[in-house]
Amino acid sequence: MRISELGHRSGVSLATVKYYLRERLLHAGTATAPNQATYDETHLHRLHLIRTLIEVGRLAIGDVRSVVEALENPRRPIHGVLGVAHYALARQDEGDSAEDAAADADVDRLLASLRWRVDARAPGRSKLARAIASLRRLGWTVTPDTLLPYARTADGIASYEVKALPPAGSRAEMVERMVVGTVVFEQILTALRLLAQEHHSARRFGRSRRPGA
Amino acid sequence: MRISELGHRSGVSLATVKYYLRERLLHAGTATAPNQATYDETHLHRLHLIRTLIEVGRLAIGDVRSVVEALENPRRPIHGVLGVAHYALARQDEGDSAEDAAADADVDRLLASLRWRVDARAPGRSKLARAIASLRRLGWTVTPDTLLPYARTADGIASYEVKALPPAGSRAEMVERMVVGTVVFEQILTALRLLAQEHHSARRFGRSRRPGA
Repeated sequence: MRISELGHRSGVSLATVKYYLRERLLHAGTATAPNQATYDETHLHRLHLIRTLIEVGRLAIGDVRSVVEALENPRRPIHGVLGVAHYALARQDEGDSAEDAAADADVDRLLASLRWRVDARAPGRSKLARAIASLRRLGWTVTPDTLLPYARTADGIASYEVKALPPAGSRAEMVERMVVGTVVFEQILTALRLLAQEHHSARRFGRSRRPGA
Repeated sequence: MRISELGHRSGVSLATVKYYLRERLLHAGTATAPNQATYDETHLHRLHLIRTLIEVGRLAIGDVRSVVEALENPRRPIHGVLGVAHYALARQDEGDSAEDAAADADVDRLLASLRWRVDARAPGRSKLARAIASLRRLGWTVTPDTLLPYARTADGIASYEVKALPPAGSRAEMVERMVVGTVVFEQILTALRLLAQEHHSARRFGRSRRPGA
């Protein structure tokens, strides 16, 4: 197909398709004339993937680039690919206050008590610690008991997700499943949490009404 | 305290504190001289809240403004306040493709089968539908069975969260607990999911190693 059809079918503007080509997020088409190329379903699929990461996952363009590089680099270990998605979703500044240091230590203790094997530099650690420190600055009491219901919930769904990965498949399929699954199902889980909160909140506090009204 | 101490203790730059004052996200201090004011713990608390919403929750400044308005407007029903946090977390463009319309209908059916009472305009609905449509464009099969484990997980944690809200307290306390709880515990849950994924993925695919390495 021509580039105009590629844009139309993917829902991505022509200018943006050209930008992705220049940035090599989208692989080049097959040249058919000095200034013309033809594109196929692999290009359409890649554009859907980029849109998903940006629009659903709200990833920055630099993180999309990391995902694309992981897809295209056959020497990256499968397990390491998961880290690309994790960095994109959880990268957070290190804190430097006393609350931040205390929260970092709390996260270490929580993970040890759960016996989760997690790298010391895993981006989820600092994301969790910054959230804990923020709550404490607002005067909330945060103890292991505050976090355990969330840890159990997270353990249940993550265990299910890793088991549900197909046992085989091409490397590109595995990588895409892992990245898309991590990014998009985070959105699915958090959307469903909001919907369930509304349901339970309506039962406790009043009639269901337009949120924000 | 003076504005410089307020900035120092909150970790917010002086220019940003002044910006929040101009934008009325931060309430005015008590005037002590024509061009000087003094601030107290309520101002420090508000700055911690704004930082939490922006840095941890990644809310846009307009959404922070909505939260502050909800805190300060005593006539807003408590249940409606939850909607402010939900809009801030889940606002998503409406889709206009055939996949989007099918996904909207799937979300309606899912919520009906779960018997969740959720407003037709709840922002979580379109967030969920856009995620489903994205997966389908990438060739994934998404059925109610795909979503049910996430719905059960979300129902469990949301039910716990709504029950855990303190039965009484000042209106401002209730509102802050609801908004902060919704925003920050979403981050806590998603951070823990990433950590648990790493743990289970390391067990299945290889040694724990630096993600991204």
